[in-house]
Amino acid sequence: MPSILDHDTVALDESAHALVIIDQTLLPGEIKLLHLTKQNEIWEAIKALRVRGAPAIGVAAAIGLYLAAREIEADDRAGFLKKLHGAADYLNSARPTAVNLSWALARMERAAAQSGAETPEKVREALRRECLAIWEEDIDVCRRLGENGLTLVKPGFGLLTHCNAGQLATVRYGTATAPMYLGHARGYGFRVYCDETRPLLQGARLTSFELSSAGIDTTLICDNMAASVMKKGLIDAVFVGCDRVAANGDAANKIGTLGVAILAKHFGIPFYVVAPSSTIDMNTPTGADIVIEERDGGEICEMWYERRMAPEGIKTWNPAFDVTEHDLVSAIVTEYGVARAPYDVSLREIFAKKEAARK
Amino acid sequence: MPSILDHDTVALDESAHALVIIDQTLLPGEIKLLHLTKQNEIWEAIKALRVRGAPAIGVAAAIGLYLAAREIEADDRAGFLKKLHGAADYLNSARPTAVNLSWALARMERAAAQSGAETPEKVREALRRECLAIWEEDIDVCRRLGENGLTLVKPGFGLLTHCNAGQLATVRYGTATAPMYLGHARGYGFRVYCDETRPLLQGARLTSFELSSAGIDTTLICDNMAASVMKKGLIDAVFVGCDRVAANGDAANKIGTLGVAILAKHFGIPFYVVAPSSTIDMNTPTGADIVIEERDGGEICEMWYERRMAPEGIKTWNPAFDVTEHDLVSAIVTEYGVARAPYDVSLREIFAKKEAARK
Repeated sequence: MPSILDHDTVALDESAHALVIIDQTLLPGEIKLLHLTKQNEIWEAIKALRVRGAPAIGVAAAIGLYLAAREIEADDRAGFLKKLHGAADYLNSARPTAVNLSWALARMERAAAQSGAETPEKVREALRRECLAIWEEDIDVCRRLGENGLTLVKPGFGLLTHCNAGQLATVRYGTATAPMYLGHARGYGFRVYCDETRPLLQGARLTSFELSSAGIDTTLICDNMAASVMKKGLIDAVFVGCDRVAANGDAANKIGTLGVAILAKHFGIPFYVVAPSSTIDMNTPTGADIVIEERDGGEICEMWYERRMAPEGIKTWNPAFDVTEHDLVSAIVTEYGVARAPYDVSLREIFAKKEAARK
Repeated sequence: MPSILDHDTVALDESAHALVIIDQTLLPGEIKLLHLTKQNEIWEAIKALRVRGAPAIGVAAAIGLYLAAREIEADDRAGFLKKLHGAADYLNSARPTAVNLSWALARMERAAAQSGAETPEKVREALRRECLAIWEEDIDVCRRLGENGLTLVKPGFGLLTHCNAGQLATVRYGTATAPMYLGHARGYGFRVYCDETRPLLQGARLTSFELSSAGIDTTLICDNMAASVMKKGLIDAVFVGCDRVAANGDAANKIGTLGVAILAKHFGIPFYVVAPSSTIDMNTPTGADIVIEERDGGEICEMWYERRMAPEGIKTWNPAFDVTEHDLVSAIVTEYGVARAPYDVSLREIFAKKEAARK
């Protein structure tokens, strides 16, 4: 099997003027690279989840807007920027609710507007630099998450993760998986256990695939087997990603994360949340302020809507996320360091470091 | 939808000389009763899991042997018993590892041998009485489990269960579900949450089906959502079945039970194991002495072997059971009463009551 690490999830091929992505709709059966040059191809790839995961979508859209800019014909800067805005609107419509998508496109437009470049050619160059900067920053953040996470583990550790906070959701390394990839490259010899993560099976389809294809010793289990692997002494630390961290350290993540955290506490196993600072929301006081999306019960009752595995008409409850209280979290790993309780203090320190780094 | 409670899972139709079962291979799509009269039909029904669950299989085999005895032609008692043994051997071969199957058949043969009946006709009558006694005892045990379990709950309780310890595994009522059925009939208005129970989905396919078809307010969730329903305050007690209870109160049950028990402890929710005394093994000192069956990883990686949902060649770990330590168990409900810690004392008292009842 070719390794997932042979390719970034998202990249710019500068000689071919193409966005290169791994087509995630074909995983885990096939690793196929797509070279996309046309706006409508890139729009379709985002729409059809060929590229997915908030950070990866943002980077793909930024590269996509640069490639679109190469096609724009305009006599002057104003005309160019107007057409650029149209192209950004078009890409943004591929997945209207993905925050990283609109964030990356707005940043690209701002770079174009603020570049001071006076010709379309010079604006294009500013856009090229900006999309590469976004791409590099994503890699840089994940690598630093990995380095900081590695300070919490030792060679030979057994690790458990839930859902997919992996390379396939970013350009490279992933978030919760970043310490695993970096440690693997340095001969740490981890054993990683992946919860399959019902109902959508991101752990089975994506995480177990990307880790095993990178040569990491990976074992797939059902979510309800996590207690047993912990009881057998096979797990030394848990690493999970997160969708949002509140100012008090409460962390919202894929449904099932709370249960894993409670099990880890019961067995005395450290539970680490890996959180790029972009996911830490100091304006959300506690986890109780985070609204949990409830999704269609068909996800539980049917497997890919092909065959029912539950009675017709059965009532379901299908929350997509849960909130893990900060007292269950051993540490929050950010690209600016490792935060520990009390989180209201340590997370403010993380943001102070981030602010200082900007200056 | 017709109610599962309209029919026993297994019964003898004396006028038609038929074993009547609900064909469980058609669930949850269809409730179809099969009327089986021939030995090879009954053998096939056990083999093909049309009837399943250890107690239900035992009762079906006992009725099956009585029906087989009606077909035996023999001049004398000795010749009859020899042919009866052949029929028992044949039925026993349907599922060689099911303990209740061989237990029920051996009990039937013993009844025939010890009946003192001197003609084939009188031996047949002894077999008829014995299979009905086995059938009635199964109902009686489950009803008493239900009555004893009901002492632990109040009207309006939210209950959570895992896997299927339901009516479909017994003649009537089930074990963990017995308090739910009895309480429902008395207007307790329970809300029951069923874990789907990966990988084989007994909770989705069987438990949520039988409870909802009986008119009980039933909600199906994925295993990894149990922590969230508990956190929302929706669960007042957990009831699970068991495969074996050790002398110290450790309980082996379907994989995932241990995790539910740890979550229940975390949230201060009572966790009850419903255990017919036949599943309590005083010769097994602790749960550590119980060997856990590990099954094929295909159950995790493929849905009914139709479509893969994990990468080819991925390593898996698929234990079928786990052991919940006695300190996580609030009480063990038996047909002779409710046992509480210290279990080494209380379980001996249960067996003393059982012994006294026999005299």
